[in-house]
Amino acid sequence: MAAHQEAIFDVAQLAHVEILSPDPAATEEFFVDYLGMEVTAREGQTAHLRAYEESYHSSLLITEAPEPGVGHVAWRAQSPAALERRVAAIESTGLGRGWIDGATGHGAAYQFNTPDDHLMEIFWDVERWTPAPEERTPLKNRPQRRPRHGVPVRRLDHVNLMAADPVECREFMQEQLGFRVRERIVSDGSPDAVELGNWMSVSPSVHELAIMRDPAELRGRFHHVCYWYGVPQHCNDAAEVLREAGYEIEAGPGKHGVSQATFLYVWEPGGNRVELFGDVGYLIHEPDWEPVTWEADTEMTWLTSVYGPIPMSFFEIGTPPVGPAAAAPAADTRAAAS
Amino acid sequence: MAAHQEAIFDVAQLAHVEILSPDPAATEEFFVDYLGMEVTAREGQTAHLRAYEESYHSSLLITEAPEPGVGHVAWRAQSPAALERRVAAIESTGLGRGWIDGATGHGAAYQFNTPDDHLMEIFWDVERWTPAPEERTPLKNRPQRRPRHGVPVRRLDHVNLMAADPVECREFMQEQLGFRVRERIVSDGSPDAVELGNWMSVSPSVHELAIMRDPAELRGRFHHVCYWYGVPQHCNDAAEVLREAGYEIEAGPGKHGVSQATFLYVWEPGGNRVELFGDVGYLIHEPDWEPVTWEADTEMTWLTSVYGPIPMSFFEIGTPPVGPAAAAPAADTRAAAS
Amino acid sequence: MAAHQEAIFDVAQLAHVEILSPDPAATEEFFVDYLGMEVTAREGQTAHLRAYEESYHSSLLITEAPEPGVGHVAWRAQSPAALERRVAAIESTGLGRGWIDGATGHGAAYQFNTPDDHLMEIFWDVERWTPAPEERTPLKNRPQRRPRHGVPVRRLDHVNLMAADPVECREFMQEQLGFRVRERIVSDGSPDAVELGNWMSVSPSVHELAIMRDPAELRGRFHHVCYWYGVPQHCNDAAEVLREAGYEIEAGPGKHGVSQATFLYVWEPGGNRVELFGDVGYLIHEPDWEPVTWEADTEMTWLTSVYGPIPMSFFEIGTPPVGPAAAAPAADTRAAAS
Amino acid sequence: MAAHQEAIFDVAQLAHVEILSPDPAATEEFFVDYLGMEVTAREGQTAHLRAYEESYHSSLLITEAPEPGVGHVAWRAQSPAALERRVAAIESTGLGRGWIDGATGHGAAYQFNTPDDHLMEIFWDVERWTPAPEERTPLKNRPQRRPRHGVPVRRLDHVNLMAADPVECREFMQEQLGFRVRERIVSDGSPDAVELGNWMSVSPSVHELAIMRDPAELRGRFHHVCYWYGVPQHCNDAAEVLREAGYEIEAGPGKHGVSQATFLYVWEPGGNRVELFGDVGYLIHEPDWEPVTWEADTEMTWLTSVYGPIPMSFFEIGTPPVGPAAAAPAADTRAAAS
Repeated sequence: MAAHQEAIFDVAQLAHVEILSPDPAATEEFFVDYLGMEVTAREGQTAHLRAYEESYHSSLLITEAPEPGVGHVAWRAQSPAALERRVAAIESTGLGRGWIDGATGHGAAYQFNTPDDHLMEIFWDVERWTPAPEERTPLKNRPQRRPRHGVPVRRLDHVNLMAADPVECREFMQEQLGFRVRERIVSDGSPDAVELGNWMSVSPSVHELAIMRDPAELRGRFHHVCYWYGVPQHCNDAAEVLREAGYEIEAGPGKHGVSQATFLYVWEPGGNRVELFGDVGYLIHEPDWEPVTWEADTEMTWLTSVYGPIPMSFFEIGTPPVGPAAAAPAADTRAAAS
Repeated sequence: MAAHQEAIFDVAQLAHVEILSPDPAATEEFFVDYLGMEVTAREGQTAHLRAYEESYHSSLLITEAPEPGVGHVAWRAQSPAALERRVAAIESTGLGRGWIDGATGHGAAYQFNTPDDHLMEIFWDVERWTPAPEERTPLKNRPQRRPRHGVPVRRLDHVNLMAADPVECREFMQEQLGFRVRERIVSDGSPDAVELGNWMSVSPSVHELAIMRDPAELRGRFHHVCYWYGVPQHCNDAAEVLREAGYEIEAGPGKHGVSQATFLYVWEPGGNRVELFGDVGYLIHEPDWEPVTWEADTEMTWLTSVYGPIPMSFFEIGTPPVGPAAAAPAADTRAAAS
Repeated sequence: MAAHQEAIFDVAQLAHVEILSPDPAATEEFFVDYLGMEVTAREGQTAHLRAYEESYHSSLLITEAPEPGVGHVAWRAQSPAALERRVAAIESTGLGRGWIDGATGHGAAYQFNTPDDHLMEIFWDVERWTPAPEERTPLKNRPQRRPRHGVPVRRLDHVNLMAADPVECREFMQEQLGFRVRERIVSDGSPDAVELGNWMSVSPSVHELAIMRDPAELRGRFHHVCYWYGVPQHCNDAAEVLREAGYEIEAGPGKHGVSQATFLYVWEPGGNRVELFGDVGYLIHEPDWEPVTWEADTEMTWLTSVYGPIPMSFFEIGTPPVGPAAAAPAADTRAAAS
Repeated sequence: MAAHQEAIFDVAQLAHVEILSPDPAATEEFFVDYLGMEVTAREGQTAHLRAYEESYHSSLLITEAPEPGVGHVAWRAQSPAALERRVAAIESTGLGRGWIDGATGHGAAYQFNTPDDHLMEIFWDVERWTPAPEERTPLKNRPQRRPRHGVPVRRLDHVNLMAADPVECREFMQEQLGFRVRERIVSDGSPDAVELGNWMSVSPSVHELAIMRDPAELRGRFHHVCYWYGVPQHCNDAAEVLREAGYEIEAGPGKHGVSQATFLYVWEPGGNRVELFGDVGYLIHEPDWEPVTWEADTEMTWLTSVYGPIPMSFFEIGTPPVGPAAAAPAADTRAAAS
């Protein structure tokens, strides 16, 4: 029997993601009118939104800013004691920023940076949302009825960040927060191979967090936030409705190799990439899962998509935009990745 | 901040289920020719089978027996230390049966009974299966190619047992093994209400284990085992192919209220009920999830199915068969539950 | 080579159906807020509606009336000359009622009765609908964008009528209007078998018109009108949204044996049965198709549904309501047909 | 009332397509082991195959030849008299080749060339196929049970040919055979625009025949043959199974703008492009349908796909191969069409 280190189960879930938008009204319209979300609060430059199967106050914060990008990423701890343990661990790394008293939607939170300067926080106390009486449903495991506007997403699924050094970020999330690594992309099969991306989770899902190498070698940039449908057809429905309305699809609907999930990538009008997941892909219940490692030089068409290649922009563009790629991602710049 | 007991994360997954069949050849044909599984070993009266996305040696054991029913249910621990902790806990209840040296497909296992006399076991060491070279796939997170026979299931999902006292069983699984209760059915809203069923999990899924009250008040009976597709359409495909071949569908394809999963119930020719899941339904990431409680007298049509009622046989028939219901479950005995 | 009579191709399509409702506002809300249709005109007691892939002015008329039922059924001819030919044929039977000058949405129409006293009409000139500029779509074969409200139906599919004598009605539609019989239900395999229902079309679809024997032996009653999604999942979506809103599902989502189409039956609040089709089922391109004949005494579970039985109410309740069955169709009156 | 020419309804359906393959064993394996078809006859260099919902002897002929391409395309007439009428019409154009006595699977057939030298035939007498007794199904409108091997296609859907002059071919099919034009692509919106492709049908489907301009300006080349699933998910299933087996996907699964159908393009190992249709897209019941005309210079991303662009190879490669494009179509030559 091989030695087997016991896993840390102190982070329960991705709680919310704050995205930055130079056009917050258009960003909000995208998430509300097209993805069926609801605004639950507005304060200052920030709107709070939730999806219909979420019981918390909010899972998405849209904050006005000069450029698109990510504001912060919040995790909910497994218990108050678990929160204490993780704070202690983070503090030991010097990346902690300290406690805040609380914010709209949740209580006291401990803020910290990833080694790549993404702002994160972790908390236990959370505010639950009470839907309006007319939204009550006899389907008792659902906080409210399925909305009748847009193609409504059900819940926040994961966040994908870019990092100058994805390895350092991954190791921090593994060691201090207990993330398990599920899949990785490396540049090739050589001993000098570089890690180009990794997918980590605190649950049987393949990821709540992915980190991809930033080709611009900048720090703290954002790749995408993903909401979940649970039904592959709804990615098709969303693609049709969004594209008829003039939104730009970057890739999909398709089926990822990494995670095996049905996906759709679309640009929200504030300039951030949004993913929609049609199913869970596969789930990992094995406690001694060995991370799957893909080699980009030979396996790119499989890792991105079971069906075929996706556009190179997927690997090149992050937010805030930078350099030539900062130009608005237009349909005619697409090239197949292979 | 309310007091919050820390959860136990020592059971990682449902590892395998042994079902009993008076016609093991027909049972095997059902799982292999129609559900696309593979026989990985035969020994004595038992055949071992696995589904194509399972990396372990086997997830289903079919054992010849005079009557249908469940042989045993096996769990894999989260780690060797977690295994030790659970064994100690079980032993303290007096329900432990002791260690076995190992068996085809796994190493040393600790056997125990539920309070209702279902035989279970828990182990750490497991044997992995190496598919034939021609079954290798470039989709590296999948142990082998998707089979081209039948409508192939991907992995074992959950097991559902009947118990004379489902409360006692549930509490044992909660306290000694760390299961979290996700949903429950009680007879009504009164203080004297009886618990008719419960759904428990060690993961964000609503259940790896459900226990339903046995209307015959017998002990140790079996309700069903469930395999997973991940794609709702595949329940439709299976229903069509199975029914054309003369297998009897009990209910579905439909969508459960409890778990929200897409389901199909079919009788395998040995007399056991088999469920096929088309998706994950909803996932529970909240660490302080309050179990959803349904009241059978008024909410039956919602809890069984979002779309409408399912046959009463679902609540009445377990295996081994007993009394009048022991007669072969025939299409013409179906009545709508409402 | 067997003698083969040349088919008549003079009826092009089902153009619109008028349903009667004692609660037209609720009926309209059902079709607009939940099925995504649009009101294009109101005049007197009638509202005109269309679905988003229909280019004509309207496909559904909702007319206030004391009881639910069908007002009239309208067909569009294949050409002006085809219209003349069909009018002459109908006139020869004595069932013609004469020309009307036109009505909202279409030009001059010839009205007639079926032998069972259903009012029908046939016309050539039709008014096309111009969607609002903001509804234009780059998908040029679609009259307007897919709506973002409800689970929007795409087009009218078929109408199902009840008749005291379905044979007489069928022969009239075959001989005078050129319908081809695709499937039939007879009571049994004996020489005295009674025809219980038939499905007829003027296209490769299995039916634009079905006629079922009225168990009340009344004349001119209505069974249902059907709208089309083209995507099976949308029947699931509609079932979920409708049932959460309190509408009553009669049967489905399921897959018919007759027509092989994915179906959902729901009661609109005016008391009429509405069907939603998820796909086309199968198409008949063979010019010498022999009608498929099902025997109700032994094949009922297959003809109604590939997956399993549907409620007996399906065979018993028509509109206007009559006798004991006239009581509001409630969930607890459902019984499985087998 | 505008003058309206009466349509010709003399061609009932696409009956079969003969494809040429330099590797007929591999081509047959593709259609049988992966698409679930059945070989019904072999004679000389030709294998006859049928899909499981086809009642005729065969819909696909695979003939050994030095290069891939199309052998001939066969239509079934609406009636014996309709056959006579079409033969007379074709003869008047000088493109007739005369009668053959019959062939495996059908009776006397009249052969002719399109103006672009594609060999076609039309017949009335057809041989029906009797499945083996063990393949009988209680689903009486289906010739046999759904197969349990591969991802089985249901029926032949359409054929797509390349032509040096697609206009001349289209006009011949319209005038002599009664095809209705449903959609067209022209190069741009100018008066000098060139027709790049057209889609024609003898039914409410958008096409049984499409003709695309051959960029090589050769005559008689082949673009693809399409089989039908009726369920969009099955295109995903086929893509996954085919790609894991090493077959090359050219494009999809996606949703066409032209026809709105769910599609998958894959190269069979003989070198021909095969399409799989997941649904019917939209159906045209309007007798005075105006062909939808797309302009390639500005609308290419919409006409090919509702979701986004497809590879340029789709517009460039026909069979037999020619010039530089004759090199095996490899994944790394793909470029996005926009």
